[in-house]
Amino acid sequence: MLIDRVYEKCRKLGSPIIVGIDPVWNRLPGEVRREALEGIDVPENMTDEMSFVCSSNAASKAFERFGIDILEAVEGIACVVKPQLAYFERCGAAGIEAYCNIVKRAREMGYFVIADAKRGDIGSTSEAYADAFLGRGQMEADFVTVNPYLGSDCVSEFVKLADSNDKGIFVLVKTSNPSSAELQDLETRSGKKIYEVVAERVEELASTRVGSCGYSQIGAVVGATYPRELAMLRKTMPHVTFLVPGFGAQGGTAADVAPAFGTGGFGALVNSSRGIIYAKREGYNYKDAMRAAARDMRQAFKDNAFV
Amino acid sequence: MLIDRVYEKCRKLGSPIIVGIDPVWNRLPGEVRREALEGIDVPENMTDEMSFVCSSNAASKAFERFGIDILEAVEGIACVVKPQLAYFERCGAAGIEAYCNIVKRAREMGYFVIADAKRGDIGSTSEAYADAFLGRGQMEADFVTVNPYLGSDCVSEFVKLADSNDKGIFVLVKTSNPSSAELQDLETRSGKKIYEVVAERVEELASTRVGSCGYSQIGAVVGATYPRELAMLRKTMPHVTFLVPGFGAQGGTAADVAPAFGTGGFGALVNSSRGIIYAKREGYNYKDAMRAAARDMRQAFKDNAFV
Repeated sequence: MLIDRVYEKCRKLGSPIIVGIDPVWNRLPGEVRREALEGIDVPENMTDEMSFVCSSNAASKAFERFGIDILEAVEGIACVVKPQLAYFERCGAAGIEAYCNIVKRAREMGYFVIADAKRGDIGSTSEAYADAFLGRGQMEADFVTVNPYLGSDCVSEFVKLADSNDKGIFVLVKTSNPSSAELQDLETRSGKKIYEVVAERVEELASTRVGSCGYSQIGAVVGATYPRELAMLRKTMPHVTFLVPGFGAQGGTAADVAPAFGTGGFGALVNSSRGIIYAKREGYNYKDAMRAAARDMRQAFKDNAFV
Repeated sequence: MLIDRVYEKCRKLGSPIIVGIDPVWNRLPGEVRREALEGIDVPENMTDEMSFVCSSNAASKAFERFGIDILEAVEGIACVVKPQLAYFERCGAAGIEAYCNIVKRAREMGYFVIADAKRGDIGSTSEAYADAFLGRGQMEADFVTVNPYLGSDCVSEFVKLADSNDKGIFVLVKTSNPSSAELQDLETRSGKKIYEVVAERVEELASTRVGSCGYSQIGAVVGATYPRELAMLRKTMPHVTFLVPGFGAQGGTAADVAPAFGTGGFGALVNSSRGIIYAKREGYNYKDAMRAAARDMRQAFKDNAFV
């Protein structure tokens, strides 16, 4: 099963790290931007270089190179990568092509890929989204993130394809952003919060799909920025794999996310995007700086009793 | 303001109709499929033609032609079209290119375009999604649909760009699918349901952004399949433009959606996808069948006191 292979590789590398691939033109290393702009006439007095570049194909070329750079930099330290679709979609079809090429290369290199798309629609439409990310087409990843607002006829289409193609999903339960409480923490008449209601549904789906590792490839997104909720949700969802965003740039620490892990260091994968891919170190080139940042993150987990 | 221009055109055409562009390979007219497959070697004994075709570029070509066919067929009857991103995304980068070409042609023809993407993420990522659909890039539409599960720092990024570029959004409030009640109808301790809480937030955003028509381009998705909720939500959101899906194939009728409209036929736009684009009529070619179905839908609204 996919999830067993994921944890096996995590254990081998001593690392529960997901590296987020979030390419933003203005933040790319200078040499990547310069190379992409070669031969392109950038108008003078341009007030918004980013919009100009994203509407050309230059940004997509740069994103692809930068994505492959990330894969090479963190090889042997992280085994899961998570491209964020929004940044690719900003560049239209060329951006999606860059996404496809990065994902293809990642899977060839042995990475597991989470398409961070947060999709969700009515049943017949969710089927198409599921096919896009968990089918055998050009955008095929190993996992996709799913938004639960539309209910079970949405989520079940993703689960169906996950079952038939040995893929996985991560349902948004408690997200890492400051305003996540506004809807997710509303208390229902039963005394449960919305995210707890969603968590119980995800556990139901996961509990009948458990790998030999003890966890399911039906997972949940639970933010590192809410450590108390993280610990509580671990109990509500004993079979669910946690995708934990919010580490690093968003403020979460290794100690904060420790409660997400079960015994043996299984049960959770922790994402860092900006903290790794835009790392800067005195005297390091950008790829070495990424690698050093990923190493430090791995060490932080070793120091906090992750196997 | 965008929303005034939308209603002005609706009034001129006597029609509050949105035509959904939801291309599904297996449902396309035979001649469109045959043309797209010319010169392509379809393997014999293929069990899943759809997956095969979607992973080639044949489906995207067919989707583009079919999309333009729809634009030509309903011209002068509907003034808003709503491409569903899921069906294009299923075909990868080539699918997105087809989407872009359809949207470009639609806007040239004077249609208003709603990108039905149901996006939503943490703030910094939502900014990229907002830029993709409401910015000046290749995927530029007039409106985009937004999922509220992540709260206000997600939605506000879309509102910001809507404000600066004179664009609009439709926030999912009460969706048309059978399982929408599971999360959206949960009652909070205040006695309000989740969709009512979301509705109040949308009204807050809309009430300070009202066009001369009396409604805002900050809109809400409210399904035709829940007429009681539709009437109630009209009162909760007096300034909000309703995007009403669920008409036709999903079961909603013109009488069902009547409560969505305010005085003068403003305040709501009603979507039909499958009921129009896959219409079949004895003795009609597929484009004429689409046109006839759209005419019937318009007539149904006239009979139900629209405008």
